[in-house]
Amino acid sequence: MRERVRSIFRRLSPSPEALIVSNSEGPHIDTSFFYLFDVPSGSFEGSAIIARSDGSLTLLTSPLEAETARQAAAKDPSVEVQLCPRMEDQIRELRRLVDSKARVALNYRELTHEAFGALAEALPAATWLDASDAIQRTRRVKDASEIARIEKAGAIVSTVATEIPSLLRAGLTESQLAGELEYRMTQNGSAGRSFATIVGFGPHSAEPHFTPGKLGLKSGDSIVCDFGALYHRYISDLTRPFHFGPSDPEMRRVHATVAEAQSAALQLLRPGVRACDLHQAAQDVVDRSPWKGLFTHRLGHSIGLAVHDGFSLNPETTEPLETGETVTIEPGIYIPGKGGVRIEDDVVVTDHGYRFLTTASREYLGPDS
Amino acid sequence: MRERVRSIFRRLSPSPEALIVSNSEGPHIDTSFFYLFDVPSGSFEGSAIIARSDGSLTLLTSPLEAETARQAAAKDPSVEVQLCPRMEDQIRELRRLVDSKARVALNYRELTHEAFGALAEALPAATWLDASDAIQRTRRVKDASEIARIEKAGAIVSTVATEIPSLLRAGLTESQLAGELEYRMTQNGSAGRSFATIVGFGPHSAEPHFTPGKLGLKSGDSIVCDFGALYHRYISDLTRPFHFGPSDPEMRRVHATVAEAQSAALQLLRPGVRACDLHQAAQDVVDRSPWKGLFTHRLGHSIGLAVHDGFSLNPETTEPLETGETVTIEPGIYIPGKGGVRIEDDVVVTDHGYRFLTTASREYLGPDS
Repeated sequence: MRERVRSIFRRLSPSPEALIVSNSEGPHIDTSFFYLFDVPSGSFEGSAIIARSDGSLTLLTSPLEAETARQAAAKDPSVEVQLCPRMEDQIRELRRLVDSKARVALNYRELTHEAFGALAEALPAATWLDASDAIQRTRRVKDASEIARIEKAGAIVSTVATEIPSLLRAGLTESQLAGELEYRMTQNGSAGRSFATIVGFGPHSAEPHFTPGKLGLKSGDSIVCDFGALYHRYISDLTRPFHFGPSDPEMRRVHATVAEAQSAALQLLRPGVRACDLHQAAQDVVDRSPWKGLFTHRLGHSIGLAVHDGFSLNPETTEPLETGETVTIEPGIYIPGKGGVRIEDDVVVTDHGYRFLTTASREYLGPDS
Repeated sequence: MRERVRSIFRRLSPSPEALIVSNSEGPHIDTSFFYLFDVPSGSFEGSAIIARSDGSLTLLTSPLEAETARQAAAKDPSVEVQLCPRMEDQIRELRRLVDSKARVALNYRELTHEAFGALAEALPAATWLDASDAIQRTRRVKDASEIARIEKAGAIVSTVATEIPSLLRAGLTESQLAGELEYRMTQNGSAGRSFATIVGFGPHSAEPHFTPGKLGLKSGDSIVCDFGALYHRYISDLTRPFHFGPSDPEMRRVHATVAEAQSAALQLLRPGVRACDLHQAAQDVVDRSPWKGLFTHRLGHSIGLAVHDGFSLNPETTEPLETGETVTIEPGIYIPGKGGVRIEDDVVVTDHGYRFLTTASREYLGPDS
């Protein structure tokens, strides 16, 4: 992890003496905590990391996490573990390890305002520096071990997606199918779902952020399933459309258009391409079709320790992509009251193009396909 | 929800003109957002609520959440919905709705420091007030609709806990059992797990925060399962110990001691009792037993929209409980290298005592019991 810490410090100006990453109670846990300290499990509520420019770090954590922390720290000589049973102990350690007048960087984006107040009280003479952009920028480009984890999470979700046509039956509810997908991910090695699974039947498939309910599946329905696995804290995020019973002719053409839009973006995907140009390529395909204006969201987002890992592929993002970034490419078309199609894959940018991290068939499948 | 807003304002001094609750990207969502705006689904990333002392509130949200937001707002005349496609729109609405020199309360405990910075920039002449304690204090006492939801989440987890003995078989791994429990909760109406399920076999059952792995179940193992359901955003949290094969005589006595410790705390549980006295009653039972010192964590915590809902039942908490609070009572004994037993139930404090919200048998069960 030493190199990750150094990369963040190189992006910070003026250079700070320390970077502190501090967790509150769940759900307010800084995902960067696990970028700096590679520990496969444990919630680390109330724990903090003090990182220095040489890449070394001290973990301040509670005795409840001691065993997990020590096992992980044993694999990384740059990590030292200090047990702090109470908040007073953590404050004492902070004052011992950080110079009272130091310039200290913090991840404002994931730190609570209350935790900031506690740090400001513990180190009243310190100068504070926002490290949010430096951390996010560093996290955007994944190293080999991160890509391997996302790829494993992508393999799990792809395996389960391939089983969906065989699960479809009349009367199956959206909630039941969502539960079934999450169960199968766990049985395939996922540590849980990476976000609340979306399953929409019929007109519900036309709502991009739909929450599965009690609606039962019936012949003629289009279906959207959007779900993801979690592997060693890294996520996958995949969407596939299906149909039940004979597929609707219009929805088949919608599917072909969405597939074409995804291909148009992927054809441009290589280091140096601007995110907005990828979005535009997909949108142009939709806007030349009869469903102009019905691609209503951004093309994609970076993935990693978080589902929305900080970088957005939308019409305003002029930043170029680079080798090692992992993003979703997920165009969709939504016909209100009728149905929708979204095709979402996870890819890693390579030196000369990209590689899929999700592998399930992109066809418009049903139980009889 | 009007009464909830008013209760928070009554606890704030000096009285603010507005309370703003602002969500960042997941996982940094303020759980109080859903205390003020009762919407069953949707992530509401980047949305904000402006609440006023008369109990009315304005929701600033994105078009992606429009349908869900409008359906929920239609049931509550005190809520007005404003769609803000971009951050600029939200800032413009904030400036329109909140007087530039207003005193504004914020939930420092769940607001990111970055979001605070954005608010301070949008309203540079405002005075800020920390509403964290007022919100948490108000949230501690649940109303009938909240208790009904926690009770439903408790019924779901209890149903699944009752099925555990029939699921145990040699070679079953901790991860497989965890996945099975989560699946069964979903099939029983849960919207997902309320936290990462703990399943520990044999010596792993002696680690209170254990993460399930690939260890297979074998005869003689003690087992701890700690898991919870999610119903309309409210959680349950239950732990049961089991054995596989003939139960170990020492572990049977450990179980009896933990059950006695739980009873000792429950016997005292009524409005007015101090949290620390409940903890002490349970700890005294353990410390009079051969396993003195092996109850290594707090007795429990409040539950609600969060698993750790802000209030802690530990030796330092001198605050008394009151009618309507929902808490866990979860003593445990952990014998390093051998095994552990924890019994955890969710209860609501009533006028004259308490009522269980989780109902699974508290016996030390195995497949043959």
